[in-house]
Amino acid sequence: MQDLIDTLRQTVGATHVLTDGDLSAYELDWRKRSRGKALAVVRPGSTLEVAAVVKACAAAGVSIVPQGGNTGLVVGSTPDDSGTQIVLSLQRMHAVRQIDGANLTMTVEAGCILQNLQDTAEKAGFLFPLSLAAEGSCTIGGNLSTNAGGTQVLRYGNTRELCLGLEVVTAHGEIWSGLSGLRKDNTGYDLRNLFVGSEGTLGIITAATMKLVPQPAAQLTAWAAVPSLDHAVALLGLAHRHLGAGLTGFEVMGQFALSLVAKHYPQQRVPLYLDTPWCVLLENSDSESETHARDRFEHLLELAMEQGCVTDAVVAENIAQAHALWHVRESISMAQAEEGLNIKHDISIPVSRIPEFVRSTDALLTAHIPGVRLVNFGHLGDGNLHYNVQAPADGDAATFLRTREDRVNTLVFDAVVAHGGSISAEHGVGSLKVAHLEHYKSPVAMDLMRSIKEALDPQNLMNPGRVVQVANAGF
Amino acid sequence: MQDLIDTLRQTVGATHVLTDGDLSAYELDWRKRSRGKALAVVRPGSTLEVAAVVKACAAAGVSIVPQGGNTGLVVGSTPDDSGTQIVLSLQRMHAVRQIDGANLTMTVEAGCILQNLQDTAEKAGFLFPLSLAAEGSCTIGGNLSTNAGGTQVLRYGNTRELCLGLEVVTAHGEIWSGLSGLRKDNTGYDLRNLFVGSEGTLGIITAATMKLVPQPAAQLTAWAAVPSLDHAVALLGLAHRHLGAGLTGFEVMGQFALSLVAKHYPQQRVPLYLDTPWCVLLENSDSESETHARDRFEHLLELAMEQGCVTDAVVAENIAQAHALWHVRESISMAQAEEGLNIKHDISIPVSRIPEFVRSTDALLTAHIPGVRLVNFGHLGDGNLHYNVQAPADGDAATFLRTREDRVNTLVFDAVVAHGGSISAEHGVGSLKVAHLEHYKSPVAMDLMRSIKEALDPQNLMNPGRVVQVANAGF
Repeated sequence: MQDLIDTLRQTVGATHVLTDGDLSAYELDWRKRSRGKALAVVRPGSTLEVAAVVKACAAAGVSIVPQGGNTGLVVGSTPDDSGTQIVLSLQRMHAVRQIDGANLTMTVEAGCILQNLQDTAEKAGFLFPLSLAAEGSCTIGGNLSTNAGGTQVLRYGNTRELCLGLEVVTAHGEIWSGLSGLRKDNTGYDLRNLFVGSEGTLGIITAATMKLVPQPAAQLTAWAAVPSLDHAVALLGLAHRHLGAGLTGFEVMGQFALSLVAKHYPQQRVPLYLDTPWCVLLENSDSESETHARDRFEHLLELAMEQGCVTDAVVAENIAQAHALWHVRESISMAQAEEGLNIKHDISIPVSRIPEFVRSTDALLTAHIPGVRLVNFGHLGDGNLHYNVQAPADGDAATFLRTREDRVNTLVFDAVVAHGGSISAEHGVGSLKVAHLEHYKSPVAMDLMRSIKEALDPQNLMNPGRVVQVANAGF
Repeated sequence: MQDLIDTLRQTVGATHVLTDGDLSAYELDWRKRSRGKALAVVRPGSTLEVAAVVKACAAAGVSIVPQGGNTGLVVGSTPDDSGTQIVLSLQRMHAVRQIDGANLTMTVEAGCILQNLQDTAEKAGFLFPLSLAAEGSCTIGGNLSTNAGGTQVLRYGNTRELCLGLEVVTAHGEIWSGLSGLRKDNTGYDLRNLFVGSEGTLGIITAATMKLVPQPAAQLTAWAAVPSLDHAVALLGLAHRHLGAGLTGFEVMGQFALSLVAKHYPQQRVPLYLDTPWCVLLENSDSESETHARDRFEHLLELAMEQGCVTDAVVAENIAQAHALWHVRESISMAQAEEGLNIKHDISIPVSRIPEFVRSTDALLTAHIPGVRLVNFGHLGDGNLHYNVQAPADGDAATFLRTREDRVNTLVFDAVVAHGGSISAEHGVGSLKVAHLEHYKSPVAMDLMRSIKEALDPQNLMNPGRVVQVANAGF
């Protein structure tokens, strides 16, 4: 292996091949569930260097774990503990190669931090609408390889829908220059979407051409109390009809989830939650003016109150108030952590079936696991719930997790699949859900995926063991 | 082969296996460029029957050409002339399996005629926004397998972006039940987008879950004279900014293209074209009201006139006027045919580079091919031009085509690629552009495509020779 390390040092420069010291930032996953050990952390500075690193590793039969900001939630970007894998960090590749305003695109390197791209777009007079909790640390390459979701999917889609073209280093170390500012291109198979969401198991995304959108003239946030999830779904339908594409956010939050925010962050004012089982946060982005946005919002909420979908509502008066409302929503995860250990699920269900799913699955869990507390919230507009399970208030949470996690997962995932849903809506598969995928996804789909993996990465060196397991071709 | 025919008759019923009589509807391509000869035309009535047909053909080593409405423009859905291929027609599978209003989806079988789906959606109170010239005959399965574009891509995307899930019969005759009403699902590789746009070469799409959108409260159409393509691009930017997602159509038409409509269809009133080199058709879909839509449109056009992007404009007063304006746009292709033979190109270029592309390529063609007449029009909002070349007015058009078509294609495609464009924006590859693709697409991309084709269709029996050529595995 020393030969390979020497080659890598020659390729990217000795200072960019890390083998000593504290490599936790690269070897420990974001949620601290898994600590690996890398043969080396390699930080190439260009696409040509990435290609050379891949070629060297392929020749040596050494596997590669690509890594961006290492903020993934499914243990997909840290090495195993064998000490035989290379972590290939894209962090040094953070150039914005081009902004094309007339084409509404920007071409960026994989290591660009998401928040920096939002800022870059804003300075150029545009909106880059991808937005999620880790935006200060995550990279666009990671967003692409996991097809990240976030809070603006309802209007702008997942990362996949924001991407027009890719530059990829294949498992053979070839460079596919598929950067493109084209909105229509029917020249063969959709390689772009195959690499997006493949979590580094088919190749390494080194750059991308992403869509920009015009900045809205105004963005308003409202908070509504709804008497049930059925009413929340009805409100969503009304909002689609009356705000059209102006509807850029529709988040639902259960009473218990909000009570945790109120309990652990008493300085935050959580509106309306005491008297209603569910609250909804709505966002309306308007291309005309703030006055127009407010009129439309008030019209919608009046209609919703007339129809009984909404019992009470507030519209933020200014940006500070809007931020405060979003901050409540975004504080739920942290409030949950303050409350203690819990079991997280990132699931999606057709919107129409969510009320019945929650009703029946809540009942099931409560019946099977006495004292369980359900933290329900998520992107209802996308059918995406973070359906989390908090340990009982009076027991030992660690014991609860140890003894009950598998059972809880089985109950929840079985219910998800029975309702036509997905066991991973926006977080991906990584290592954490590989076994679940084998169990819950159709064998035909798994076989198709395995065929593709074997075709594009015959040595099984690209992030092996993630997403889909194949027999190791070895050497 | 008689054994296979017998098996197929048992599988789908003897009346649905056609071997005699006039099979032109299945064997002759839409633009009458290619007449093939099928071993048989098989019309299964269910997904199970499709799977059984594929299995029988695979066992016999007989290749399959899947076919929907047979309206494709690149000879992708008719058999070759060997008499050894099965045409598998999906026309009998035309059920709408489900409409889920709260989830904004409908699940439909591959053989549904596009226009019927538009009508079905409208009756349920929704809009199914895919719209294109062949909508009265084409099927959604064909739209999906070619990733069809059309006039609403600017706002709603290509067919790809309207699809949430697929049911597919693989090359092995297995059924992948990937129908899904989910807007987020990160459980592995994006099989859906791999089958969409693969033109039946990887498997057969038998059903799909498609997005619906709320019907707009009003839809207005405007027609503007612009002094140059640069001004058209500037107008597009203004329209994006001021109409936001309300901008659902942005078509550009050159003066010569419009003069052909005026010449061959004198009953049509073609507005404004006499005094301007380019006209633009804009469509504004509004979730509020017709008054609001009109106000926003007039505001936009006033602003555009102040800035010099637009020299004159009309907004349709009623639906009949709007239809008349769209009808002019849609009559260009037919007017071209009336004028005589011509060479068609369906290309895309980043929007920002279109003016320079047209300027330089017009000059190039005029210099190399004296008397050539350029018919320029297309979906400027998507960067998609139908950049067509009409034979000189005074010569023999058939001779022109025979002697000049290859040269013209080379000049145009070289220019397209030099401007970062695609040689097939929305029509696909089929047989017609297979050789062009090999020439113009990156070898790395072609190798990736070949690997995928070989992995998913190892016998090369699914629409062989289309999109990408592989060594025939044979039997």
